[in-house]
Amino acid sequence: MPALNHIPPEIRCALDYETQAPRFIAAPTLAYIEGGSGHDRSVVANRAAYARWAITPRLLRDVSAGNTGVTLAGMNMAHPLMLGPVAFHNLVHPGGERETVRAAAAMDCPVIASTQSSCTLEQLAQSAGPQRWFQMYLQPQRADTLDLLRRAEAAGYGAIVLTLDAPIQVASLRTLAAQFQLPPQCVPVNLAGYTAAQEPAVAAGASRILQGLMAAAPSWDELRWLVGQTRLPVWAKGVMHADDALALRAAGVAGIIVSNHGGRSLDGAPATLDVLPAIRAALGTDMPIVFDGGIRSGSDVFKALALGADAVAIGRLQLYALAVAGALGVAHMLKLLREELEICMALAGCASIEDIRATALFHQRDHHVNHD
Amino acid sequence: MPALNHIPPEIRCALDYETQAPRFIAAPTLAYIEGGSGHDRSVVANRAAYARWAITPRLLRDVSAGNTGVTLAGMNMAHPLMLGPVAFHNLVHPGGERETVRAAAAMDCPVIASTQSSCTLEQLAQSAGPQRWFQMYLQPQRADTLDLLRRAEAAGYGAIVLTLDAPIQVASLRTLAAQFQLPPQCVPVNLAGYTAAQEPAVAAGASRILQGLMAAAPSWDELRWLVGQTRLPVWAKGVMHADDALALRAAGVAGIIVSNHGGRSLDGAPATLDVLPAIRAALGTDMPIVFDGGIRSGSDVFKALALGADAVAIGRLQLYALAVAGALGVAHMLKLLREELEICMALAGCASIEDIRATALFHQRDHHVNHD
Amino acid sequence: MPALNHIPPEIRCALDYETQAPRFIAAPTLAYIEGGSGHDRSVVANRAAYARWAITPRLLRDVSAGNTGVTLAGMNMAHPLMLGPVAFHNLVHPGGERETVRAAAAMDCPVIASTQSSCTLEQLAQSAGPQRWFQMYLQPQRADTLDLLRRAEAAGYGAIVLTLDAPIQVASLRTLAAQFQLPPQCVPVNLAGYTAAQEPAVAAGASRILQGLMAAAPSWDELRWLVGQTRLPVWAKGVMHADDALALRAAGVAGIIVSNHGGRSLDGAPATLDVLPAIRAALGTDMPIVFDGGIRSGSDVFKALALGADAVAIGRLQLYALAVAGALGVAHMLKLLREELEICMALAGCASIEDIRATALFHQRDHHVNHD
Amino acid sequence: MPALNHIPPEIRCALDYETQAPRFIAAPTLAYIEGGSGHDRSVVANRAAYARWAITPRLLRDVSAGNTGVTLAGMNMAHPLMLGPVAFHNLVHPGGERETVRAAAAMDCPVIASTQSSCTLEQLAQSAGPQRWFQMYLQPQRADTLDLLRRAEAAGYGAIVLTLDAPIQVASLRTLAAQFQLPPQCVPVNLAGYTAAQEPAVAAGASRILQGLMAAAPSWDELRWLVGQTRLPVWAKGVMHADDALALRAAGVAGIIVSNHGGRSLDGAPATLDVLPAIRAALGTDMPIVFDGGIRSGSDVFKALALGADAVAIGRLQLYALAVAGALGVAHMLKLLREELEICMALAGCASIEDIRATALFHQRDHHVNHD
Repeated sequence: MPALNHIPPEIRCALDYETQAPRFIAAPTLAYIEGGSGHDRSVVANRAAYARWAITPRLLRDVSAGNTGVTLAGMNMAHPLMLGPVAFHNLVHPGGERETVRAAAAMDCPVIASTQSSCTLEQLAQSAGPQRWFQMYLQPQRADTLDLLRRAEAAGYGAIVLTLDAPIQVASLRTLAAQFQLPPQCVPVNLAGYTAAQEPAVAAGASRILQGLMAAAPSWDELRWLVGQTRLPVWAKGVMHADDALALRAAGVAGIIVSNHGGRSLDGAPATLDVLPAIRAALGTDMPIVFDGGIRSGSDVFKALALGADAVAIGRLQLYALAVAGALGVAHMLKLLREELEICMALAGCASIEDIRATALFHQRDHHVNHD
Repeated sequence: MPALNHIPPEIRCALDYETQAPRFIAAPTLAYIEGGSGHDRSVVANRAAYARWAITPRLLRDVSAGNTGVTLAGMNMAHPLMLGPVAFHNLVHPGGERETVRAAAAMDCPVIASTQSSCTLEQLAQSAGPQRWFQMYLQPQRADTLDLLRRAEAAGYGAIVLTLDAPIQVASLRTLAAQFQLPPQCVPVNLAGYTAAQEPAVAAGASRILQGLMAAAPSWDELRWLVGQTRLPVWAKGVMHADDALALRAAGVAGIIVSNHGGRSLDGAPATLDVLPAIRAALGTDMPIVFDGGIRSGSDVFKALALGADAVAIGRLQLYALAVAGALGVAHMLKLLREELEICMALAGCASIEDIRATALFHQRDHHVNHD
Repeated sequence: MPALNHIPPEIRCALDYETQAPRFIAAPTLAYIEGGSGHDRSVVANRAAYARWAITPRLLRDVSAGNTGVTLAGMNMAHPLMLGPVAFHNLVHPGGERETVRAAAAMDCPVIASTQSSCTLEQLAQSAGPQRWFQMYLQPQRADTLDLLRRAEAAGYGAIVLTLDAPIQVASLRTLAAQFQLPPQCVPVNLAGYTAAQEPAVAAGASRILQGLMAAAPSWDELRWLVGQTRLPVWAKGVMHADDALALRAAGVAGIIVSNHGGRSLDGAPATLDVLPAIRAALGTDMPIVFDGGIRSGSDVFKALALGADAVAIGRLQLYALAVAGALGVAHMLKLLREELEICMALAGCASIEDIRATALFHQRDHHVNHD
Repeated sequence: MPALNHIPPEIRCALDYETQAPRFIAAPTLAYIEGGSGHDRSVVANRAAYARWAITPRLLRDVSAGNTGVTLAGMNMAHPLMLGPVAFHNLVHPGGERETVRAAAAMDCPVIASTQSSCTLEQLAQSAGPQRWFQMYLQPQRADTLDLLRRAEAAGYGAIVLTLDAPIQVASLRTLAAQFQLPPQCVPVNLAGYTAAQEPAVAAGASRILQGLMAAAPSWDELRWLVGQTRLPVWAKGVMHADDALALRAAGVAGIIVSNHGGRSLDGAPATLDVLPAIRAALGTDMPIVFDGGIRSGSDVFKALALGADAVAIGRLQLYALAVAGALGVAHMLKLLREELEICMALAGCASIEDIRATALFHQRDHHVNHD
């Protein structure tokens, strides 16, 4: 069904955009979007982790001067929500990314544009609000990487997000079973003219994975090189271990995005929410963390913030909302998420995002009482 | 089906009133009563928490002089059961609250009358027994709050219960899906003539939640003001954190009610049973605690008492019993709960409510043995 | 279906007697036998507890001189299995207890005859083997208790088992729903002529439970009196707490039976296997413990022995086997249980019952590894 | 359905060979292969244990010079996969073991030939690659054991694997229910002419298990005797406890195989993955460990290596692959497993098998955060 030009009455919370999506997205495409990698274990894990935590209501706190504003590496945000990089929005709506980012701009929501967008980064920038970052992969040729970087700078993107966690991507088995194929209009127009990644021929006895696909994987040297090529802050996306976070900070990245690529990279990676506390503990408070993975409600956002995130990135939910009602749907989804977050803040007595600490949560195993 | 004038044979334990309720309550109304907030996670959590604990049988203890009496802030109670405040009993029975409180009086069960009753607090007082408290919200106008307070004093209510945990209420998604609407006869007659709460207009860019709904939320100043306006003891309802309990005691409240509003306020709040031990530990023994949340059996009551409650308040179960058999049903439900509690006491060797300690319980994870 | 006079091919392990029982026992009767108390929570808990433990295989140990013999308070047993007291075997087989105990004698299995048998204790003794104990309740009249005791002594019972855990019995809700009624042939012929327990009239305002049913409950004084009246060892059945076990030892009992009455007394009591380790730890090694609760296989027996039991009592399984194939079924069930136990012993490298220690088990949470 | 001569499109990962197996293997035979012992509890446990661990993705590590090579007690292996001993491959493919080992040789995968093969060990050796071990049981007659040993030496097997964990085997109840019978072509041709194991007659009152079946069980003396009879390294298969591992090392075995016989020996034994860490911790690093039990994917392999294994043995999966597509299927299954392992290595940043440590895993309970 094509996207509506109104919000259907079945949408009562942000999660409902996922519930309604099957009416608007063809089954194989939906399998591709919903799927992760392999058996989708990390997709499931990301979602399940939120249920381990409850939010403790607090009483009589004055939150009437409160707000959801955060400052993220110098960027003043009206709320801690971002749209994360998701490829090919034209899979679910002919308007593609331009539709999405118009909605984001209207809701004061920064966007992280994907290299794999269905319009160019320059076109996307024209529709987007001023708070836009550009997500990229290191290209096979350094010249191409530099060109992409310069174009992003020229188009006014405020930060570079380097995705590090997907040197190999294994399709979801259910996506394969659904026989999904990228339709012809889904081409990475941003990369037109660049040298495409090619699976290198490997010597006899060598590994198609280790000597093949991984030969082109980014390295610490390349990361440092990229950081040195631009005055824009560089963020690293895909961090799942505290030691990597520390090393990335030492290498000059401006911030990290805790992510397992929405479960689309290593099937069986931990839930992002589960690794977040240790990463925050290692970094202390002077390094910004954006978080993604399974966010579907304001209480999910609240929990991620409580466990150490400064902001969260919305992934699949933007496609679902786009499919249901275009830009209107995306804007409404963001409004719902923000209000759901505000309700959690109000009832947990947090007047600001800073007030949202781990102490605001209750671990579902903390109920034990010592026998007297 | 209208309420019976006898107890149906299917009712064999207090919980059976819930099991039979669907035969007596229309589906949308039942969805409204059963529902909590959002995804009903705290409704489920409240109920699930009891299963984490077992009750250890004890042998050969003489309980034949025992009884279930408790003294709660000076009120001598025949048993530790109260009827908690529940709005609009006429939703399920034309006799409404008067039917309910007549049954409670017959069973020596104190009631906490809801401000949102379908008869006035004065009418309700005429049907109720001598042990009655009045639950209220702070009204938009202090004069109205004072008027309500004076009326409650005049009508002989013995305590004021100030509900603090629901400055915002979010409907249950299943209630919304059932398209429940409050019927016209459900109007808060107690508040006739008072200034109604109005969602304030908020400035552009301000939050409908934080600057809107929460602007009218009660504050510590208002709580202290209310405590100073009456010689009645003031209880605070909705406490879920030990620090709030301590602050409330310091502010002069006479007792607290550990509650998450039956899961109808913050969806995702912890189970009340899970937070009870820490609250009791913080308060020590010199502050009374009433507890609610998911009580459906005498063993639930026993567990709440063991983990720190002095008495428990029954919520939805009173509506179910009222729907099934009117006042007779409510009386019978209370009789069953009390007997179920007495059986637990008898078999756990507790001759008095005081004897019911945490040591009477067995945590389902305590079975581990150290290998020798 | 009447009992077969052969073992049906579907019986491949002891548990299969339970699986096949519905073909041989009418549904209401089966509900009565299977049911516990209330919601049958302790019935379920008893069974579920075994799954928390695995048995660690051990290698190359010589068990070829091994055996399952145990000495229990001076009684030499060929194996650690006993038949626990179960009322009215004629519910499932016209031969009743005489059929059951003939099988037990053939399998060298001591029996604990129930007071509530469908033949007299004297008749039962004639069919039973030499290892027989008599289970009794304290009677309303001491003279009757003494008479019962003297009859048991005269009939050659070797020990008295005093059941302490069921001063009140609450029917299982599913038994009630099945509308089970004891058939007329099920009368406690042992108690003919004795004063029956009567629910005492209670004063107005007094509790039917605490002042009524519990007024007749046994006391420490009565226990000590009974111990003083007989030269037979007195065992206490229904122990679920270490402190009770210690007090019973101090009061002169010869041994204890850890039991929650098969889940038929306090609904919500812990699993017997869960409380066993703490009771054994409190008693040390010089007090014998018989254990019951949910035993359906030789590995269940092994686990109970490992966690502190000296022997185990079989409950419902004897009725199932009796219903399927009479004495032959009971004998076969005992043979299967013993062989299943022997297989566990052989593979865990335990040549004797004494070798079965807690170290032979592996707790399902013990898999954690410290990160290096 | 007979085996295909191509890989069907439904096979997208190693586990799919299990999923597709029911199309190629008759139901009773499949029940026999899938089943373990008794209620198949250890079969289920083996598989379930992997889900307790996640694999932590790591970033920017150079693995392009990496490989999966391991040296196992002097044998250089291209990857840490072996084919474990599985009886009677001709159950699922007329080509039997020769088909399987041809595939293994093509994939540089060592095989452990089962004594209970459908061709002789000499025939099997002719089809197998150079890396082949021989699995055997101690025979009732030492002369026969020696003969078997000498034949294995003569046929060029590089190690002897002595299976210790199955002195008794109890059929799976579901295999029994499926009425599976070994077909006539499944005879242990290796043992032709040897004295068969016979269940010894036992004295009256003696145990068919302990004095019967276990009389023939191997002992420490026989193990040491065997070790002394051959210059080949002797491995012990079926180790589940650290103390046994230490004693085996002291007795001169070259390495151990942590195994519970695929759940076919003691029903209720722990998952092999659960006991592995303690065994590795006890042995330190100077004793090789091969691991089996439920391996169905490269991530399973990764987890076993991380928790202490040096290599893993594939069991049932080789029969499934053989049934689906003969030697081609087995080769493809091994290729998939290896690539799946390489992908885990690449994304976890492990360039070598040595790099795969417990720190690469994330325990699903490690998410707890201390409240600040």
